[in-house]
Amino acid sequence: MLNAISLEEAQKIIKENIVPIQKTEILKIKDFVKFNVLTDRVLATDVIAGIDVPSFDKATMDGYAVKFEDTQKATPENHINLNLSASIFAGNNEKFKIKNRECIYITTGSVLPDNADAVVMVEHTKRDGDKIKIFKPVRLLENIGKKGEDIKKNIVVLKKGEILTPGKIGVLAAIGIKEIDVYSIPRVAIFGTGNEIVNVGKNLTHGKIYDVNSWTIACIVKKAGCIPVMLKIAGDKEEILQKRLDEALQCDVAIISGGSSVGEKDLLSKVLESNGKILFHGVNIKPGKPTLFGDVNGKLIFGMPGNPTSCLMNAYVFLLPALRKMTHLPFERKMVKAKMSEKFVSNSDRHLFITVKLENGYVKAVYKTSGAITSMSSADGFIEIPTDKKMIEKDEEVDVNLFEI
Amino acid sequence: MLNAISLEEAQKIIKENIVPIQKTEILKIKDFVKFNVLTDRVLATDVIAGIDVPSFDKATMDGYAVKFEDTQKATPENHINLNLSASIFAGNNEKFKIKNRECIYITTGSVLPDNADAVVMVEHTKRDGDKIKIFKPVRLLENIGKKGEDIKKNIVVLKKGEILTPGKIGVLAAIGIKEIDVYSIPRVAIFGTGNEIVNVGKNLTHGKIYDVNSWTIACIVKKAGCIPVMLKIAGDKEEILQKRLDEALQCDVAIISGGSSVGEKDLLSKVLESNGKILFHGVNIKPGKPTLFGDVNGKLIFGMPGNPTSCLMNAYVFLLPALRKMTHLPFERKMVKAKMSEKFVSNSDRHLFITVKLENGYVKAVYKTSGAITSMSSADGFIEIPTDKKMIEKDEEVDVNLFEI
Repeated sequence: MLNAISLEEAQKIIKENIVPIQKTEILKIKDFVKFNVLTDRVLATDVIAGIDVPSFDKATMDGYAVKFEDTQKATPENHINLNLSASIFAGNNEKFKIKNRECIYITTGSVLPDNADAVVMVEHTKRDGDKIKIFKPVRLLENIGKKGEDIKKNIVVLKKGEILTPGKIGVLAAIGIKEIDVYSIPRVAIFGTGNEIVNVGKNLTHGKIYDVNSWTIACIVKKAGCIPVMLKIAGDKEEILQKRLDEALQCDVAIISGGSSVGEKDLLSKVLESNGKILFHGVNIKPGKPTLFGDVNGKLIFGMPGNPTSCLMNAYVFLLPALRKMTHLPFERKMVKAKMSEKFVSNSDRHLFITVKLENGYVKAVYKTSGAITSMSSADGFIEIPTDKKMIEKDEEVDVNLFEI
Repeated sequence: MLNAISLEEAQKIIKENIVPIQKTEILKIKDFVKFNVLTDRVLATDVIAGIDVPSFDKATMDGYAVKFEDTQKATPENHINLNLSASIFAGNNEKFKIKNRECIYITTGSVLPDNADAVVMVEHTKRDGDKIKIFKPVRLLENIGKKGEDIKKNIVVLKKGEILTPGKIGVLAAIGIKEIDVYSIPRVAIFGTGNEIVNVGKNLTHGKIYDVNSWTIACIVKKAGCIPVMLKIAGDKEEILQKRLDEALQCDVAIISGGSSVGEKDLLSKVLESNGKILFHGVNIKPGKPTLFGDVNGKLIFGMPGNPTSCLMNAYVFLLPALRKMTHLPFERKMVKAKMSEKFVSNSDRHLFITVKLENGYVKAVYKTSGAITSMSSADGFIEIPTDKKMIEKDEEVDVNLFEI
């Protein structure tokens, strides 16, 4: 029998042992938006602005660049006239200058001419050949964006540890950063054990079942923002299990499904103990009791139960938060409240995870058995029933943990 | 001047015109978990189970396969004895059979021998050579998983339109599906216009700014589950804009930033009108008034404002829900409630989107100008102030739309 620890102890041990990845890599901003580069990368370094943004005083409206003092007497009834001396369009890099009583037509984003200190919006003017009628005074710096107003040169614009959201990618682009240092994405080795499991695509002979867990785990790994590395099924031979473990240790963390129960053929704990140490084996939860967590030369190993529902449920409960921590990303489960559609009685002394479906504010348990993948596929989320709670009444409000994050 | 419509009208027009993508593709399940294949793919067809899962009656516990009637008189004090005739391990495809008063050792997941109709858990037995002492009776079918109990052959296990969550991928694996029909991922053409913008990596000469919008839009496109296709900056020449538009029309939808304002150089609406039709140009919102939405030969075109904050804010407001609809995926904005840290007075007749930062349950406006990308990068989300609301009091509770979904 397993010496099962509590859910809270298991979570504590995982939390204490999982360390955010320290490897970093250089990513080009143009690679960043590629389809095959994960979003939500995390900065491994502070970013210092090499330029002012904008790098010049600019017009923020289409209109006429003026000396603001020249416009002070303008009213709708008594306009003032200014002489139009030039036109500036955005992207034009010529130098312009205005004199007293002069103005220059300017479009949004253009460089403000020398001596100009405001822009009159085109809506408050009327053109008459080279004379521009101004019908409204402007304030000093009105409709002007000052050099460095958005980002000042030499300041730290983004800090190590920040997640590169679309807005922050925009900051990198604005200061013309070509490449940046980000934390690497953890590579997660995944393989199944057991003579009964067969890879999808192969023929299913009598007594065999398809490997479900490697695929569901891989999906969770991707959702966590990590790279799944699929290894071959290990079967039940010690030397093959050892070989597969050695391959898995090339990755940052390894997830092995099956082989952590207590049957005669369960070699995983034996192999792990001879390579490293087992941090826990057995958690007082249902489904998913025979979950194992170990450390081999500093690499962490999750031994997930072989039953598909136990395995995937535990992947949501233990693996997802652990992998998010490895990626430096936050983890928050999406929760909703709902009412029980029928009374539920627990006859277990374990902490229960019951898969449920949401319908019109009610939850309905859809849990069949720990071996049934449809217990998971037909569910929207799960409710938890701690060991000290034995019953949920019909219509009682419960917290539903949604699977999709 | 733009003939601006209301936010609600703009959203309605987009919703009416955006159609979920109809193209489909075949995806191999082993490609599905690859790093560069997006998660959350949507089934384009019903999936029918080709096999029963499990495809045989199996043991769900380690123990002894028996005829349940043979165990009925067993008690902890008065055990019964059965003769051990064989051992079956999971994955073994030999045929076994038990006779009366016989039992077979069996591990979880193994094929139940013929004539057996229950499994006694190993914990309720004791082995003595070839005699097995049974200390507890079992019920008919106890610790047995019946053939087809999880999934019955020939039923529809997954329906067209369902999102392939980890649990549903598990179902595909369980029935040994090698490849499936899913909706294609929309390809989204992205380019910026304007002589003033320069691509990241190039040298920034006087009067120029780096292209920010193409990168922030690309991040939103990826977050929506679509493929960004980056095109070259179009500059301000009509023939280049036309060429770029022709390239963009090879994709499923096009996002163009800049060039939709009303300055002399704003050619986008002109070019779009000569190619197709403009569905709206100008929305009564701030920032982001000069947003444009058009249709060229059935391909939809978003013309986003050139100002980085206006552009990215509109990408969250209009683009993200539209692209999610194209991908057949649901869209829900993550909302939290918080209190205003200071009084806010609107002097605008437009619907305002104010970027805010969350701190200890309070929100603080961080909006600088529509040209400042830092208005977005330093914000956690935004609050909305409809046209008929002119003030938010200090400590008033507001709904905050979080940027991260």
